[in-house]
Amino acid sequence: MSLTPLPEDLKEFLEPYLPSAPKNSSHPFVTLTWAQSLDSKISAAPGVRTVISHAETKTMTHYLRSRHQAILIGVGTALADDPKLTCRYPDDTKPSTIFPFVVDPKGRWDYSKSTLYQLNKEKKAWAPYIITSEQVDDGGLLESMGGRRIILPLRDSDSLQNRLANWEFILSAMRGYGVESVMIEGGATIINDLLVSGLVDSIITTVGPVFLGSEGVNVSPPSAIERLRDVRWWTGVQDAVVAGRLPEETT
Amino acid sequence: MSLTPLPEDLKEFLEPYLPSAPKNSSHPFVTLTWAQSLDSKISAAPGVRTVISHAETKTMTHYLRSRHQAILIGVGTALADDPKLTCRYPDDTKPSTIFPFVVDPKGRWDYSKSTLYQLNKEKKAWAPYIITSEQVDDGGLLESMGGRRIILPLRDSDSLQNRLANWEFILSAMRGYGVESVMIEGGATIINDLLVSGLVDSIITTVGPVFLGSEGVNVSPPSAIERLRDVRWWTGVQDAVVAGRLPEETT
Repeated sequence: MSLTPLPEDLKEFLEPYLPSAPKNSSHPFVTLTWAQSLDSKISAAPGVRTVISHAETKTMTHYLRSRHQAILIGVGTALADDPKLTCRYPDDTKPSTIFPFVVDPKGRWDYSKSTLYQLNKEKKAWAPYIITSEQVDDGGLLESMGGRRIILPLRDSDSLQNRLANWEFILSAMRGYGVESVMIEGGATIINDLLVSGLVDSIITTVGPVFLGSEGVNVSPPSAIERLRDVRWWTGVQDAVVAGRLPEETT
Repeated sequence: MSLTPLPEDLKEFLEPYLPSAPKNSSHPFVTLTWAQSLDSKISAAPGVRTVISHAETKTMTHYLRSRHQAILIGVGTALADDPKLTCRYPDDTKPSTIFPFVVDPKGRWDYSKSTLYQLNKEKKAWAPYIITSEQVDDGGLLESMGGRRIILPLRDSDSLQNRLANWEFILSAMRGYGVESVMIEGGATIINDLLVSGLVDSIITTVGPVFLGSEGVNVSPPSAIERLRDVRWWTGVQDAVVAGRLPEETT
């Protein structure tokens, strides 16, 4: 399925927020990006894949991926969406060259049953790097496809403090693997934590004119964040996109 | 304090959403309007007044009031914000002529201690019409200022069904008092209920580029609402404004 064209003004709009020198030279440049409803939900219910954004902002997502070396998601999103994690911009005639990372501390995601594995077999995408604290014996499948498990001694994820410490660790490890820029797409816990982490260089958020309702999966950081810096809005056929940088004080 | 000028393009943007013939001829035209953070909070915590929007969208609020006969808020907002409920557009050199309604089923709001009462004494604003199910003896104070208590047999507000039945009743009563258009400004329970009530003609929402965090007071309707109709976005110096109509099916 081909993408609708990227509006030229959207491309210009995004440029100032795309990877350059990161805040922290021992980490990749981190772009945090998600699509939400007006009531700041990213899906209608836990584990439900929900389309929020218009075709043109879907194209934007692939354009953004084309401007980053790596894409990262959490295991919850991997399980709920079984995403392709590919870059299809400007089209999908060539193999995707974005580097997929899945954060899966407890080894819950079965790569061998994923759409990504199918794409890897067809040589349409790179195999994932799975960040985990558990060794998993898959008979060498992941490595045979070119992927890898990065085993890190991650802390229990039951406190924000531990989760933020893990992010420091994960991003340092990624930098160690040569990743200079990463687009982090969710899910909600990852977004909410990273918003207050001080580790994010840019945020790019699509807002679709729908309400997903109070049962939806919510984006809202654990504490308030004052006005974003360098904020700009772009508006499309139906959606708005807001881009900015987090205030320096949020660390 | 004078208002910053209203951007001309914002005025044009708003025009299609302003009062005309209402959906329901036995009700006023209802505009639901609020300012929220990116994480769809209208304040940082219950009872805390929080500034979200930029000066230009504050001017918009007063311009919108100038285009409606009445303004309505709930008792929670009256208690938390002690609002003036006046129209200061185009400036505040003349008395406000917007008609304030406060929905206060249990008679919790003390008009005699409110800023609005002070304004009424100074003849800068009209006295409120309080919609309640409780007779309150204030020694005739409210009526002496030109206000009134509209006593309605409101149902218990513990279920959505009852609250929606009350809104049918309240809006019919307002129409009976000659109100042809009302701007409803919150709080959150009122917004969330009315979003699924089928009683709203337009919504006009300001989104400020802040996050108020997970302890904030949340706007999210009890059930999902599909894509708004006739959606348009306006973007200002910092905020975006989205205007639209609720889909017909949401009743």
